[in-house]
Amino acid sequence: MNAIAENSYVLIVYKDKRYFKKVEAGKSFHGTGGAINYSDLIGTEYGVKRGNYEFYEPTLEDIIMYGLRRETQIVYPREAYHICFKLNLKNGSRICEAGGGSGALTCMFSRMVGPEGKVVTFEKEERHYKNARKNIERFAEWDNVDLRHGDIIDFDEKDFDAAFIDVREPWLIIEKVRGFMRGSAYLGIIVPTANQIIETLKALNEGFGDIEVLELMLRRYKTITERVRPEDRIVAHTRILIFPRRLGN
Amino acid sequence: MNAIAENSYVLIVYKDKRYFKKVEAGKSFHGTGGAINYSDLIGTEYGVKRGNYEFYEPTLEDIIMYGLRRETQIVYPREAYHICFKLNLKNGSRICEAGGGSGALTCMFSRMVGPEGKVVTFEKEERHYKNARKNIERFAEWDNVDLRHGDIIDFDEKDFDAAFIDVREPWLIIEKVRGFMRGSAYLGIIVPTANQIIETLKALNEGFGDIEVLELMLRRYKTITERVRPEDRIVAHTRILIFPRRLGN
Amino acid sequence: MNAIAENSYVLIVYKDKRYFKKVEAGKSFHGTGGAINYSDLIGTEYGVKRGNYEFYEPTLEDIIMYGLRRETQIVYPREAYHICFKLNLKNGSRICEAGGGSGALTCMFSRMVGPEGKVVTFEKEERHYKNARKNIERFAEWDNVDLRHGDIIDFDEKDFDAAFIDVREPWLIIEKVRGFMRGSAYLGIIVPTANQIIETLKALNEGFGDIEVLELMLRRYKTITERVRPEDRIVAHTRILIFPRRLGN
Amino acid sequence: MNAIAENSYVLIVYKDKRYFKKVEAGKSFHGTGGAINYSDLIGTEYGVKRGNYEFYEPTLEDIIMYGLRRETQIVYPREAYHICFKLNLKNGSRICEAGGGSGALTCMFSRMVGPEGKVVTFEKEERHYKNARKNIERFAEWDNVDLRHGDIIDFDEKDFDAAFIDVREPWLIIEKVRGFMRGSAYLGIIVPTANQIIETLKALNEGFGDIEVLELMLRRYKTITERVRPEDRIVAHTRILIFPRRLGN
Repeated sequence: MNAIAENSYVLIVYKDKRYFKKVEAGKSFHGTGGAINYSDLIGTEYGVKRGNYEFYEPTLEDIIMYGLRRETQIVYPREAYHICFKLNLKNGSRICEAGGGSGALTCMFSRMVGPEGKVVTFEKEERHYKNARKNIERFAEWDNVDLRHGDIIDFDEKDFDAAFIDVREPWLIIEKVRGFMRGSAYLGIIVPTANQIIETLKALNEGFGDIEVLELMLRRYKTITERVRPEDRIVAHTRILIFPRRLGN
Repeated sequence: MNAIAENSYVLIVYKDKRYFKKVEAGKSFHGTGGAINYSDLIGTEYGVKRGNYEFYEPTLEDIIMYGLRRETQIVYPREAYHICFKLNLKNGSRICEAGGGSGALTCMFSRMVGPEGKVVTFEKEERHYKNARKNIERFAEWDNVDLRHGDIIDFDEKDFDAAFIDVREPWLIIEKVRGFMRGSAYLGIIVPTANQIIETLKALNEGFGDIEVLELMLRRYKTITERVRPEDRIVAHTRILIFPRRLGN
Repeated sequence: MNAIAENSYVLIVYKDKRYFKKVEAGKSFHGTGGAINYSDLIGTEYGVKRGNYEFYEPTLEDIIMYGLRRETQIVYPREAYHICFKLNLKNGSRICEAGGGSGALTCMFSRMVGPEGKVVTFEKEERHYKNARKNIERFAEWDNVDLRHGDIIDFDEKDFDAAFIDVREPWLIIEKVRGFMRGSAYLGIIVPTANQIIETLKALNEGFGDIEVLELMLRRYKTITERVRPEDRIVAHTRILIFPRRLGN
Repeated sequence: MNAIAENSYVLIVYKDKRYFKKVEAGKSFHGTGGAINYSDLIGTEYGVKRGNYEFYEPTLEDIIMYGLRRETQIVYPREAYHICFKLNLKNGSRICEAGGGSGALTCMFSRMVGPEGKVVTFEKEERHYKNARKNIERFAEWDNVDLRHGDIIDFDEKDFDAAFIDVREPWLIIEKVRGFMRGSAYLGIIVPTANQIIETLKALNEGFGDIEVLELMLRRYKTITERVRPEDRIVAHTRILIFPRRLGN
């Protein structure tokens, strides 16, 4: 059985509402669908219904969307998923990341490289660093994240299987980050504006090849059987992803 | 160093052309950019340039797109990435899959669940089963795939962390597949038509909740610095993804 | 000169705010950018700036979006534009319309067929009919609209150059409406759901050919020179447009 | 009746094939659906079926897509429709256009402003000018187009109701074109690249306001009743449309 344990997290769903909560004995949950005592949940299987609510085991997407404390614009799941695979991460990979933000993507990387992998992440802003550290301590599944307060420019290791840059002016550090990468590893870069795409492409000189620039759009559908239709709005453009591959000299 | 080994695979890029090849000593490669002896590559680092060509270490996406032998419509990477994470797969997860097709998604699942995970996949068509088996033998990274020639309807195991259905009439097996799943595990379903969305939603009764229906669009940009612009065409709609979560009784 | 006349309409813009107002002597406008006396505007040319505001001559799009009183979901400009041309309307065309709604599309048709054209529109709901009549009286540019309170099923004229249906169950009246059309005229139909597309296609039998089904998405960009980027949200799917062409027997 | 006349144009449809042809007595049509004598069509009503073919009265979209001789990238109908309305054209409007290309948009403008309107179009390239002239002579419905071989920079008229620019470097002529416009008239500009959006926005100084930048995507659906689904590909981005409104000094 897959039972709800005391002090574990649960995703509570009532109609369009989603609540990400810790199951604390003796405490209760109050939402728009009424009140529930957490003690009534402990030991029952995930997927249980109580009153108006459904109780789900949180997925990593639930954690990122509803559990993580955000102090920055995060990389959204639909893009994070693409990044993790595009960078070819797998069990045991080592990746370095410039710009940890709130740690959302870092948590994804952590999952993707598994217990034998390594994620080295730099965040310059102390406030963001502290917030990301808390998020990672709470939610990263394996002890594989090395979050550092500082600038990746001062880093000096080699042979990473992949690298990722999420800073305002990626073109300033691309050459440096290239030095951390091995073979034909992928670099990922995320930027919001067309101006930044142009500047980034200028900086991707002969040390990189096979550049791909893309954006992802995700459209949800309404799920009423008699009236199946796309939602009226697409969250279309969070940011642009740029994926060059390292070339040797 | 990350050197190109004899009999390993390499992705060869020349302008817009991509070649997925095995590096065989004594043989040579002939493409639109001229000829190259594979022996000249062996022992050099990935990311090397020779003649007009660039030589990259294949990623899983390269394998799926250029290496896999396809006998069916495959689940494309942009959707496969989303599925893997949405189903909350991670190191050690167990997933069952109805409709193996050419094995593309199976290879993704294999990567995602790592050496301690398990992927049980059913394919009814003998021809597709044989092709998928070859693809998986060549390209799956860990020995974690149990590909079976048969119908998932005859399966009888429990407590899978996730399930996926890619068959023409998913509504016929949803209830059966639900029995293989544990707690509030995610089910994923992929269909191409609006008619199938409607029929699938009808079959998702009280045993499932929190249903999400979505499609992904991916738009690439041209990468000429002076003329940055989206490609004229979006590969917009391969198929629709449906993600219900299991509810208990 | 193109001067702002007393009692004419003006579009007032302040940052992201848009106000559609009648220029009434002796009255004043109060918005988030401060107050303006309308009398100061009368006789000045459109395009004038006063205080924080810009004053534009309203286009038909401004009228539809900000002037029209809406009691129903309207056909949005991006779709209305496409419909007008797809139906091949021009100076002098005659079109009949089932489901006048708030009269937005009727105003577009009115513009498109010009002073020598004719738009016959049916609206069954008395409340909507009255609202549409007011909108058309205020905003239609030529006296070419014949708005009727009733059901198009009772209509009995021939040889229309085009027809349009915006009702909940278009399949019930398609055959009837076909009788009003001449030669290979285009019929346009608008529906929001996939279920309705399916039912409509079933009803389009041998009396129609060359069917086109489409949706339009419009994406706006932010206009800050240093940070050019698409808006985060696309208004993607208002409704689906179906365009069959009449075939003879 | 709406009969097919000798020497008129007809759109012939067979499955996915479309032929735009002149109906010439004594001649015959040969397509993938077999042969047809044009003489058999003359005098029958549009919408007739003969053999495997359907015969439709060409709409302006048919003319633009299948009839016009193209020597340049044209403005596609979905964008042309939007432009015509956004520029607020109607019966009697006067518009000037920089960059006539193959005359596709000019034909749309011609239709939109009707017999009492005026379209003044400049095309610098003699070859394109000659081709556009032929297209306009064949297909423009009213004698309202003044196509000139030359540069709009040498033009010197005032009080146009709208203006449109389709040249490589619109920013060089925006200020000049502004001088031809009246009141708060709309200017339309079309460009393909992000770099050009940036340069154009820089050039839109205080003489313009309320700038809108947008792109249109059109997605078609397959029309098989039992398998309703979007086409796999969206023609997403032909070009970006920029719409500033003139402001006075």
